[in-house]
Amino acid sequence: MSEAVEKLTKRNEDPSKWYLQLVRLAKLADYGPVRGMFAIRPYGFAIWERIQADLDARFKATGHQNAYFPLLIPESFLRKEAEHVEGFDPELAWVTIGGREELEERLAIRPTSESIICDFYRNWIQSYRDLPLLINQWCNVLRWEMVTRPFLRTAEFLWQEGHTVHATAGEAREETLKMLGVYRDCFYEALTIPVLTGAKSPSERFAGAVETFTCEALMGDGRALQAATSHDLGQNFARAFDITFLDENQERVHPCQTSWGFSTRTIGGLILVHGDDRGLKLPPKIAPTEAVIVPIWRGSNKGAVRREAEALYSELKGSGLRMEVDLDEEHSPGWKFSEHELRGVPVRVELGPKDIEKNQVVLVRRDTREKEFVARAGLAERLQGLLEEIQDNMLQQATEFRDANTRQAETYEEFTEIIEAKRGFVVAPWDGTDETEQKIKEETKATIRLLPFDREEGKDLVSGKPGNTAIFARAY
Amino acid sequence: MSEAVEKLTKRNEDPSKWYLQLVRLAKLADYGPVRGMFAIRPYGFAIWERIQADLDARFKATGHQNAYFPLLIPESFLRKEAEHVEGFDPELAWVTIGGREELEERLAIRPTSESIICDFYRNWIQSYRDLPLLINQWCNVLRWEMVTRPFLRTAEFLWQEGHTVHATAGEAREETLKMLGVYRDCFYEALTIPVLTGAKSPSERFAGAVETFTCEALMGDGRALQAATSHDLGQNFARAFDITFLDENQERVHPCQTSWGFSTRTIGGLILVHGDDRGLKLPPKIAPTEAVIVPIWRGSNKGAVRREAEALYSELKGSGLRMEVDLDEEHSPGWKFSEHELRGVPVRVELGPKDIEKNQVVLVRRDTREKEFVARAGLAERLQGLLEEIQDNMLQQATEFRDANTRQAETYEEFTEIIEAKRGFVVAPWDGTDETEQKIKEETKATIRLLPFDREEGKDLVSGKPGNTAIFARAY
Repeated sequence: MSEAVEKLTKRNEDPSKWYLQLVRLAKLADYGPVRGMFAIRPYGFAIWERIQADLDARFKATGHQNAYFPLLIPESFLRKEAEHVEGFDPELAWVTIGGREELEERLAIRPTSESIICDFYRNWIQSYRDLPLLINQWCNVLRWEMVTRPFLRTAEFLWQEGHTVHATAGEAREETLKMLGVYRDCFYEALTIPVLTGAKSPSERFAGAVETFTCEALMGDGRALQAATSHDLGQNFARAFDITFLDENQERVHPCQTSWGFSTRTIGGLILVHGDDRGLKLPPKIAPTEAVIVPIWRGSNKGAVRREAEALYSELKGSGLRMEVDLDEEHSPGWKFSEHELRGVPVRVELGPKDIEKNQVVLVRRDTREKEFVARAGLAERLQGLLEEIQDNMLQQATEFRDANTRQAETYEEFTEIIEAKRGFVVAPWDGTDETEQKIKEETKATIRLLPFDREEGKDLVSGKPGNTAIFARAY
Repeated sequence: MSEAVEKLTKRNEDPSKWYLQLVRLAKLADYGPVRGMFAIRPYGFAIWERIQADLDARFKATGHQNAYFPLLIPESFLRKEAEHVEGFDPELAWVTIGGREELEERLAIRPTSESIICDFYRNWIQSYRDLPLLINQWCNVLRWEMVTRPFLRTAEFLWQEGHTVHATAGEAREETLKMLGVYRDCFYEALTIPVLTGAKSPSERFAGAVETFTCEALMGDGRALQAATSHDLGQNFARAFDITFLDENQERVHPCQTSWGFSTRTIGGLILVHGDDRGLKLPPKIAPTEAVIVPIWRGSNKGAVRREAEALYSELKGSGLRMEVDLDEEHSPGWKFSEHELRGVPVRVELGPKDIEKNQVVLVRRDTREKEFVARAGLAERLQGLLEEIQDNMLQQATEFRDANTRQAETYEEFTEIIEAKRGFVVAPWDGTDETEQKIKEETKATIRLLPFDREEGKDLVSGKPGNTAIFARAY
C-alpha cells in the first residue's frame, strides 16, 4: 500500500479531514498564498476538462455559442439592479488602482457577470430578429468568502455562466427549465450524481431573479450540495439596464432573460458522492484515465513484461480508450494498485508473466474491486463494456443511497431527529413563510434545498398551517 | 452587397480605420465600459476556440498538462524577482479591498503568472524525479495599457502560458526552442501566417528571462507583429523563489525554468495578414464555418430550393465538414454573398433551381473568388480538397508577400528609406549595442524584431562597427 493511502483518514471517522486529505493526496488542488485561492493541479484540472467537454457539447447542441466578457465591472453597473448588488456586495473584491493611478470609479472583479453582460446586450439587441440571444461564457469569478474549502467554497472559482435573452416571459421560463434539464442530464449521464431538481424558496433565490431552479445532490455524509442553478430573471435586469427591442408589432419592449451556472464545485461533489476509504472513485465518462495498466515483474522477466505492457498500452490506446501504463521501477505493484485506487481510475489492468503465457490479463474494477480474467483477444471490447457497467453501477449505487436517505417526516420532532441522527433529505410540507423556514434553519441547521415540481399538500410541521412539499437538508 | 461591406473603408486608404471597422462589422469584438476591456463576441470567440483546440493538442502531444493558478498575486511575490517587477509594475491593476475590508497587502491581477506559479512549484518539486514539470494554463491576464486596440493590445486578454521546470540549463533551453517550434508549426500549418523565428535583443527580453525567442509576423500593411514568445528563464526565478531539488547525486540545487505564451492577439494578426477590402479571410483549419450554403430562390420555387439546401447541409455536415446554411428570407443572395465574405468563410456553396436540375452546385472560394461548378456526387470530397487548396494557397500568398517585403539595407540611408516608404522587414547587421538600437528606434520608429538563428557578419549601418544580422521593422 502506498504511503498516501495509509495516511488517508477513514471517511466515517472524520469526513471533513478525509476530504481535505484526499484533495491533497490525489493531487487535485493545493493551497496558495492568498486565503481561499487554490491552484487546481493537473489531475484535478483534467477532470474539469472532461466535465467542460461534456457540458460544452450539450450547450452547443441546444444552440448556444461561447463568448467572453470583461473581468472588471464598474461599481455603478453593479448598483443598477438593487437586489443584485445587495446580494453580492459583501463578497466583492475591488480594484482601486490601475497603472499606478487611483481610479475615478472602482472596479469589482466579477462575482457573476449579469451586470456587465447586460451593458453589451443593450447594444446588441435592437429587434425581435436578434432574439433569442443564447450565449455562454467559461471563465473565472471571485467572491470574497470567509470560510473556504477546495472546490466546495473558494474565493476564486472556474465556472460557466449562460446568459440568454428572449422575446417573451414564456420563452425565458422554457429556457430556464431546458438548461436545468441539461445540467440534470450531465449529472446523471456523465457524473453519475443523481441530483434532485426543483425550485428554490424565495429566500434562496439568486439576487435579482424572479425564480431560481436548482440541482441538489446528496453527499456520502448525508449533507446536501447545491450543484448547479438556473435562473429566470424576468425583466428585472432588462429594466435596470434599459435593454429594449422592437417587437413584431414595432413596439419597443423589454425582453426577458435567464442565467445559469455550473462550477468547479462539482469536483468537490464528485469526491463527496463517490469517494471512499481508499480514495476517489471517478465515473468512467469523466475519468481522465479510464484504465491503467500495471505490469507485474521480477528482476528476471522485467524486460519481457515491460515490452508486453507497452504493446498492450498502444493497442488499447489505439482503440480509443484513455489509457495509462505505470512503468515506474521504484515502487511495487501493490503500491501502484493503491495509488491508482486513490486517484479513482475506474479499471486496473494487471499483467504478469503468467498472464502473458496464458494470453490474458486481470481486470480489477475500482467501484466493486471485483477481479476478472479476460483473454487478450477482444480485450478492448470487454474493457469498453466493463466501463459502461461501472458507469451504470455508480449511478445505481448513488441513487440507492440517495433514496435510502430521503425520508418523510410526520412531526417536527421526527424531523429534527432525522436531521440530527441520520442527515439526508427530509421531505415535509412547508407553509411557504419565511418564519417557519428561518425557525427550522436556526433550530436544526437544515435549509430548504428545493421545492419539487410535483408538490403534495399537507400541514406544515412547525406552524400547522396548510403547506406543500419541500425538501430539507443540512447543506455544504 | 450588404450595408456592412459597403461601410467598410478600403484597406489601403486607412488601415487603422479598416481594422476597427472590420472588427465591429464582422462582430468579432465590442467595446465595453472600461477602457481597453473588450468583449469577444461569439464569432470572434469561435475563432479563438479553433486556435485553442489546435494549440492544446500540440501541447498535449509534447507531454504538457493543463492546470489553473490563482488570479491574484500578493505584491511581495511580484517583488521577489527584481527585473520582473520592474518590467510589469507600471501596468498593474491592484485589488486593495476585499469583502468590505482594506487588505493588509494589496493583490495584483496577474499580468503573467511566473511569480504565483513559482510559489506552488517550490512545494511540488523536491527531487529530480519530479522533473521535468510541464504545465500549461489557459486564462485571462491584465495589463493596464494606455493605448488599446481590440485583440492587438487590450488591458485584459486571453492567452495560454506554459511554465516548465527542468533539471539542467540544457534541457530548459531545449524546451524553450521546442515550444517556439510548436508555435511556429501552429502559425504555418493552422493559421497560414509565415512567421520568422529568432531571439529578441536584450532590450526586448521578457522581464526576468535569460533569453527570449519570438515568432514575428508581417502584417498586410508592412508592419510587424510579435505573435508569440518563448522564454528561457534560467535559474532567475528559481533563485528568487527558492525553488530547489535533490539531484541524482543527492545535492540540493536550483532547477531551470521556461515560460511561453500565445494570446488572443493572434486574432488581430489573422485579420491584418489575410484581410482585404471585402473583409476577413480565414484559413479553413481555423474558420468556425468551413463552407456556407446560400440557396438562390424565387417566390415560386422557394420551398423546393429550401428543402434541397437543407438536405445538402445535412449531407455535408454528416461528412464532418463545419457547415452553415443561410435560410434567411429577408435578404437577397447578393447581400448574403458579401456578408459571408466579410466574415471570411472560406467557401460559399451556391444552390439554385438550375443547379438542382443539373445535380450540381457552384463553389466560390473566398481567397481567389474563383467559381467552380461541381457535381453533387462526390461533393464532400471536392469540398475537402478545395479547403486544403485554400489553406495551402493562403500560406503561399502570405509567404510571397513576406518575402517580397523583406529587404536588405546596405546603408543607413537606404534603411530609413525602406522603413519610411515601403515598411516590411529590413535585414541589416547590428553591432549588438543598446545605443545603435535606440538611435534607430528614435530616428526611424523601427525596432529589432528578431535576431535570426543563422546570422551573417557585416558592418552596423549606424556605427560602422562589426555586427551580425538583425531583422528590423516598425511594429504593432
